[in-house]
Amino acid sequence: MKNKSIIFTQRPKEMPSLDNFLVQDEKTPSLSNGQILLKSLYISVDPYLRGRMNNMKSYIPPFEVGQPMKSGIIAKVIKSKNKNFSEESYFYGELDWKIFQVSDGRGLFPIDEGLAPLSSYLGVMGGTGFAAYFGLLEIGKPKEGETLVVSGAAGAVGLTVAQIGKIKGCRVVGIAGSDEKVKKLENEFGLDSAINYKNNENMVEDIKNACPNGVDIYFDNVGGPVSDAVISNANNFCRIPVCGAISQYNESKLSLGPRLNPFVISRRIKMEGFIVFDYAHRYMEAQMQLGKWIKEGKISLEETIVEGFEEIPGAFLGLFSGKNTGKMIVKI
Amino acid sequence: MKNKSIIFTQRPKEMPSLDNFLVQDEKTPSLSNGQILLKSLYISVDPYLRGRMNNMKSYIPPFEVGQPMKSGIIAKVIKSKNKNFSEESYFYGELDWKIFQVSDGRGLFPIDEGLAPLSSYLGVMGGTGFAAYFGLLEIGKPKEGETLVVSGAAGAVGLTVAQIGKIKGCRVVGIAGSDEKVKKLENEFGLDSAINYKNNENMVEDIKNACPNGVDIYFDNVGGPVSDAVISNANNFCRIPVCGAISQYNESKLSLGPRLNPFVISRRIKMEGFIVFDYAHRYMEAQMQLGKWIKEGKISLEETIVEGFEEIPGAFLGLFSGKNTGKMIVKI
Repeated sequence: MKNKSIIFTQRPKEMPSLDNFLVQDEKTPSLSNGQILLKSLYISVDPYLRGRMNNMKSYIPPFEVGQPMKSGIIAKVIKSKNKNFSEESYFYGELDWKIFQVSDGRGLFPIDEGLAPLSSYLGVMGGTGFAAYFGLLEIGKPKEGETLVVSGAAGAVGLTVAQIGKIKGCRVVGIAGSDEKVKKLENEFGLDSAINYKNNENMVEDIKNACPNGVDIYFDNVGGPVSDAVISNANNFCRIPVCGAISQYNESKLSLGPRLNPFVISRRIKMEGFIVFDYAHRYMEAQMQLGKWIKEGKISLEETIVEGFEEIPGAFLGLFSGKNTGKMIVKI
Repeated sequence: MKNKSIIFTQRPKEMPSLDNFLVQDEKTPSLSNGQILLKSLYISVDPYLRGRMNNMKSYIPPFEVGQPMKSGIIAKVIKSKNKNFSEESYFYGELDWKIFQVSDGRGLFPIDEGLAPLSSYLGVMGGTGFAAYFGLLEIGKPKEGETLVVSGAAGAVGLTVAQIGKIKGCRVVGIAGSDEKVKKLENEFGLDSAINYKNNENMVEDIKNACPNGVDIYFDNVGGPVSDAVISNANNFCRIPVCGAISQYNESKLSLGPRLNPFVISRRIKMEGFIVFDYAHRYMEAQMQLGKWIKEGKISLEETIVEGFEEIPGAFLGLFSGKNTGKMIVKI
């Protein structure tokens, strides 16, 4: 197989397009002592990558124009000149969008294929699962019988949040972007109710009807008017883990929305933004618990798999039009 | 002295005016067994009363048109037919805006004039002090060396928050509505810096300059563009106790502002609304600590006193144009 890479060619102003990426041939590098040669097997595309395309100081550095794109990748060791990495073993790392690349092994995490499928380490058994786990349990603090609303409920994080919510005994209401997803959420994933936010002019009413006891926890993956509609149904002491704002990621300036402070006060709402990296010291705990739930059949490993290295940019762009159910992954 | 009452005559749509109130003569009531006759001495006017003028379900019921207004009042027992209430003793209660009124004693709290001046039980030693105390300490969680920004810093709650912030070793920056208040905050109340938000076109820069290490805690009394400017200077893990939104209390519908979710996420901001009543079981603790700080000269009992029963509505309206420094109180 010939080596290829995907270069970040220019910063998008608003919605990114294929023009922001260039697939190019690349020489397969040779190894020095201490190095390993990795072959990418599964490549993660995630909404948060959009933030790294802007030239802005944030919790991770922006992508550099002219350099390869990066994301979470499951790779196989093809050749090793490093005694800590044996050939044919599998690792997770934040790696370049390349088919083959060398590494000195720093920042690579070994993966146990016996515990869960390789690709799941990009989803439920990886960062998106951890975000769901810590955001819901540490900030949302669900109690049995409470009502949990999840936006982006058919997405990678949202779907895991919804299922953990069910495990914790909540009434779980999902918000998603198509009737097909709504049906899936209700029929395959056990949500108590799901709502299609697209072309919906009665979101506030629909949420009210789906949540007869009000909203105790709102796991927010999207921001914008969907969130306004949920928050207007918030109960006193509602907790809102703010995990994502995909409705805003392609804005060149912050859009306007109602100032909710009077609500936040009178209903004692707690909103808390978080980044999964802040819980890195507890990833093992989350992985063990999530692995257990997967084995018990309580959490499904829903994935949308796109095949082919050159399809990575398209798969990434598809996130913003809701092309995925569960984790969006590119298989090489 | 003849008895009078102040009746709530009509719900304001936006900014209230004197037309919403009617001062009328009232017969001084006679006492049945178990009752006491109270004379109002100090009457509290507070921004939150504006919310009760709307016909909206909230944490306290709305005022009823045609009925007397109510607020926190310090009253003296003039006559008693209740053995638990001796004549000449002082109580705090949520009472009608009347000079004289009867009570069965329910909801009245005895006041210790030896510990602090009577009027201070409407301010630092009462609800506004408690709001400052619990909001800052329980939600803001100030640590020595952190930077605390307080909006409405010359107001009743804000001024107490600022002073507790200094006690806790924070750099304290206040935002207020006049150059005079700014000078007072810096020169009389020991704030490290203060900013006049009125006619200020560089709030973001001014806050940045006043907070060279960024903002760790933002105690929000006002909402609106002032808060946007503070939040854009927030450090990672910034805590925002949301105590008031006086900039929005006279809106007939929620005004629009930038949707801050991307910020809330990337900087892991925690915003939490609260109502002082939720801490009622801990009022004694707060009162003891605040009383100690007052005695030690660490917290001042700044008050703006307006004299005369008929001036209550005007004093209340004055809150929305910043006529007060510290607690606004009407003395009968």
